[in-house]
Amino acid sequence: MKSEIIFTGTELILGQALNTNAQYLQQTLAALGVDLYFQVTVGDNRKRLVEAIVQASARADLVIIGGGLGPTEDDVSREALAEALGLPLEENPEARLITERFFRSRGIEMPRNNLKQALAPPGGIVLDNPVGTAPGLALDHGSILYILLPGPPGEFKTMVDRQVVPLLRRRLGPDVSVIKSRVLKLCGIGESKVDETLGTLLRSKNPTLAPTAKFSEVHLRITAKASGPDRAEVMIGGVERRVRELLGRYIYGTDDETLPEVVGNILATGGLTLAAAETCSGGCLSHLITSFPNGSRSFKLGLVADLHRMGKFFGFEQDFGKDAAEILAQKIRELAGSDIGIAITGNGGGIYPAGGGSITIATSIGDVILSRELTLWGEGSELRQRVVQVCLVLIWNTLQKRTGS
Amino acid sequence: MKSEIIFTGTELILGQALNTNAQYLQQTLAALGVDLYFQVTVGDNRKRLVEAIVQASARADLVIIGGGLGPTEDDVSREALAEALGLPLEENPEARLITERFFRSRGIEMPRNNLKQALAPPGGIVLDNPVGTAPGLALDHGSILYILLPGPPGEFKTMVDRQVVPLLRRRLGPDVSVIKSRVLKLCGIGESKVDETLGTLLRSKNPTLAPTAKFSEVHLRITAKASGPDRAEVMIGGVERRVRELLGRYIYGTDDETLPEVVGNILATGGLTLAAAETCSGGCLSHLITSFPNGSRSFKLGLVADLHRMGKFFGFEQDFGKDAAEILAQKIRELAGSDIGIAITGNGGGIYPAGGGSITIATSIGDVILSRELTLWGEGSELRQRVVQVCLVLIWNTLQKRTGS
Repeated sequence: MKSEIIFTGTELILGQALNTNAQYLQQTLAALGVDLYFQVTVGDNRKRLVEAIVQASARADLVIIGGGLGPTEDDVSREALAEALGLPLEENPEARLITERFFRSRGIEMPRNNLKQALAPPGGIVLDNPVGTAPGLALDHGSILYILLPGPPGEFKTMVDRQVVPLLRRRLGPDVSVIKSRVLKLCGIGESKVDETLGTLLRSKNPTLAPTAKFSEVHLRITAKASGPDRAEVMIGGVERRVRELLGRYIYGTDDETLPEVVGNILATGGLTLAAAETCSGGCLSHLITSFPNGSRSFKLGLVADLHRMGKFFGFEQDFGKDAAEILAQKIRELAGSDIGIAITGNGGGIYPAGGGSITIATSIGDVILSRELTLWGEGSELRQRVVQVCLVLIWNTLQKRTGS
Repeated sequence: MKSEIIFTGTELILGQALNTNAQYLQQTLAALGVDLYFQVTVGDNRKRLVEAIVQASARADLVIIGGGLGPTEDDVSREALAEALGLPLEENPEARLITERFFRSRGIEMPRNNLKQALAPPGGIVLDNPVGTAPGLALDHGSILYILLPGPPGEFKTMVDRQVVPLLRRRLGPDVSVIKSRVLKLCGIGESKVDETLGTLLRSKNPTLAPTAKFSEVHLRITAKASGPDRAEVMIGGVERRVRELLGRYIYGTDDETLPEVVGNILATGGLTLAAAETCSGGCLSHLITSFPNGSRSFKLGLVADLHRMGKFFGFEQDFGKDAAEILAQKIRELAGSDIGIAITGNGGGIYPAGGGSITIATSIGDVILSRELTLWGEGSELRQRVVQVCLVLIWNTLQKRTGS
């Protein structure tokens, strides 16, 4: 089944709202094994919506339209679908019941505007909306299934889950192909190096293997299309093994796992504890590590201040630089009684990372103190995220070596 | 100028990534007064991308393509544009310099793959990419301007701001109709109350006024369409004045201002300093306040630990609850020598916020200690954001009263 989805909404086309409905529906279709080739967004404009529907009808078996089912003048999806297919609109009694029920349940009289929401082309199947006034619609016309869904995300998602998924499952029958994905997450290696190492594996058609570069990370997405979930799993497993043989030592996690979470897990598994003294990272490292249960459990103490105040607190005087970071890493470890101490300093010792410059990250583990000086440029808060990301990669690498030896 | 934008990315069409680039570009085009009629997304598929480009060429004067400029096999935007327009691809020396410069600045040898990023149809103007390896491209062909932009959001947004906006401004000339928006941000009031207070103002057609509810905040967007930016500004100003008359005391900021930033600004303006002791918020408050220059300047000290450790550190023994939070707020203020001390405790005193429950936030200002107990439920990291949000609203309210009196 080839699908195309169309969203209508002036707030979407003007960028005033982020289209989270699109992502939700796309994920749902992918999981069902429905191919999606085009996603189109137009404003609340009948002419352009008609154009998009006509276009989609020429290349898809399933056309889903999201938004434009409200009671106001600028809600034009019902009208546009009827026009595109050359069908009339008439009041659908079932749809009217749904709209009326919404008002009755709130003890409000239904405004006359809302009668518009009960209009539908003849032959359509009304989709119930338990959380709003706009009924959805499914309509078979020619060989194409058209589905209209309301725009408010709560209503949209409820209707996708309760109505669209069961409907499509019935249409697809038992032997549908599914699309499954797994993301392998790498750090400490660049995208081109990953590319070079994987070579022809990247040209594989099914499963596909697609790298995406993030700051200090590369994500490799394996996507398999197969006759069922088990088969897809086996196919993904095969590619994953080959990738792990080539790049295993850079893979820190999979799918939704994040570096702060994985670092916390390794700490907890090894029974190791951590403390952090942060100047220019302002508590961001502490916050990220303690955002997960294992990281929180392993986290003893976090301190946020500028270097001058840190020096006064710990009783040392040292200008910003490698030495200051190393002393700080050791001092925070001793104060917390933790296994590992981390210090992040930069920007001459201040808290705000300003435009960047020289940053020093130091780790103190037992008697060993390691530090890394780097130069990073960028904007305040974004730069801070990158400083912390580099620090997490450093901690992960250190822990890998430790547990690997 | 009529525009159409096309995004390519299998991660986008499968719903694995949310298309924030689309929203950014849409906002930018709206602000410039460029009409956008269609936004289309396709996977990393050359055939379908060509189809989308051909289609856009039939109905727009400006076609912007985002994504697909990386060095790998599945990056096909350069090739698709050349194919759609019937043009060859050749190495562009300027583009090559940009890609090479990226590697040189990092002291890495450029992998051969990246040479692909220097390919362009003849006659194209290369758009510099100061933050990545993929040069962008602007190409006039027939009466249409085509622009290619890289997909990674940091690179995309940098190039939109620094290259696309100035280029389009030059093309548009001085007299265009523009759409301008301003968002008024409120806290300490619910959406229905805002709705009730504004009444018929919400039905205004131009400017429009649209409320959106966030956790502990309501955002009011005023959007005006006018013959020029000055006229739009006057129209927005008129509505803003009426909203401020009705709801002024709840408005903490406008547009991109955030509550942590505004709190930092008020602190800096008043010459006030802050210190924070955080258990279940894990450093999130310190991180947010110090993410802005004024907040950093006003921030003296942050401490992250569980309540037991806090007690040992400050030399008090107190079970989790109102008293513990109040002692902690006072202790951190004294230790830091700051004007204000904040303590956040919850979840029985642990660092990880788990599923929620009872949370206490205390503020110590001079001799006055205030605390607020609340019950919040939710998931770990999301719950933490909400705890910190409530805390920021509390600090903002306190500072308002202080500076207001």
